[in-house]
Amino acid sequence: MLLSALAYSHALMNQTIQPGDTVIDATVGNGHDTHLLARLVKDTGKVIGFDIQKQAIDTTKRRLIEAGLDQRVQLHPIGHENIVDILPPAETVSLVVYNLGYLPKGDKSIITTPGSTLSSVKQALSRLKKNGLVLLMVYYGHQGGEEEKDVILDYVESLPQKNYSVLHYNFLNQKNSPPFLIAIEKK
Amino acid sequence: MLLSALAYSHALMNQTIQPGDTVIDATVGNGHDTHLLARLVKDTGKVIGFDIQKQAIDTTKRRLIEAGLDQRVQLHPIGHENIVDILPPAETVSLVVYNLGYLPKGDKSIITTPGSTLSSVKQALSRLKKNGLVLLMVYYGHQGGEEEKDVILDYVESLPQKNYSVLHYNFLNQKNSPPFLIAIEKK
Repeated sequence: MLLSALAYSHALMNQTIQPGDTVIDATVGNGHDTHLLARLVKDTGKVIGFDIQKQAIDTTKRRLIEAGLDQRVQLHPIGHENIVDILPPAETVSLVVYNLGYLPKGDKSIITTPGSTLSSVKQALSRLKKNGLVLLMVYYGHQGGEEEKDVILDYVESLPQKNYSVLHYNFLNQKNSPPFLIAIEKK
Repeated sequence: MLLSALAYSHALMNQTIQPGDTVIDATVGNGHDTHLLARLVKDTGKVIGFDIQKQAIDTTKRRLIEAGLDQRVQLHPIGHENIVDILPPAETVSLVVYNLGYLPKGDKSIITTPGSTLSSVKQALSRLKKNGLVLLMVYYGHQGGEEEKDVILDYVESLPQKNYSVLHYNFLNQKNSPPFLIAIEKK
């Protein structure tokens, strides 16, 4: 059975993250990925989460407390273009995940934008461990989504093959701009 | 660790094929896939292999006899556009695999071609079980390869979403036309 792009991103998280790792959820949203990451790093690891929407941070905080996972997670109510300011200088991460687009069930006018996303991905790569992954779930059916998609694709295609593998996992025969996955591995 | 397109095609074979299945290796070549398929169908299953090059059939036959797997495999020294003529009328298959391009270490002027490949893929889909897979490893760096690639991509993009999922698994930042995988699942 072929995995959806989202299910494949979760499979890659499961394979990559080790107990004790530090990982980043760059777009916390409704906290689904944050929750999975917190389970995978175990109680010796750490998840750093970013979201500019207070609603997203509050919902996720509640979800994590209910699950007894909140001690492993730092939530920051700021944009993901602040990774290098928040992450301690010597610290590297094994995984950074993005869900690009708008907050499901939230304000559809608040979207991730090409400039800050690109800045954030560059910061993420600069702090990624060897064999670590940056995962980008790209939702682009909304106003402004195509532009962000093109900026991201141009950038990842330009990454040097010597240092990175860039996987594109997408479905070709689906209507309505289905989300796709980009997975960048540091060699 | 991200799997190469070839390694991912093998992972999908492992997940999909059950003992007793009938499967097809549409381009036997040096027999690597034929060998893996024969192991996966076990001694109650059957692999049907096609290759227009006698050299490919002979090498593979020898390899299978050495491994004690030859009783599970029927090798046909004809093109893969003959699937519906060879497969018994009532029989369906759980997997069909293609390696498009030329035979590695063989005559580079003998290549798979868009017309026969397209005809073959249509035949394969017509005999595919529910949840079965058609896997296409597309090598296109050779003369004529781009044309075949475009014909195949156009075709699979047009497959109805209601009946098929079409996954494209490819690396974006590699030079020299790296091979990619298309996996078509029947719903």
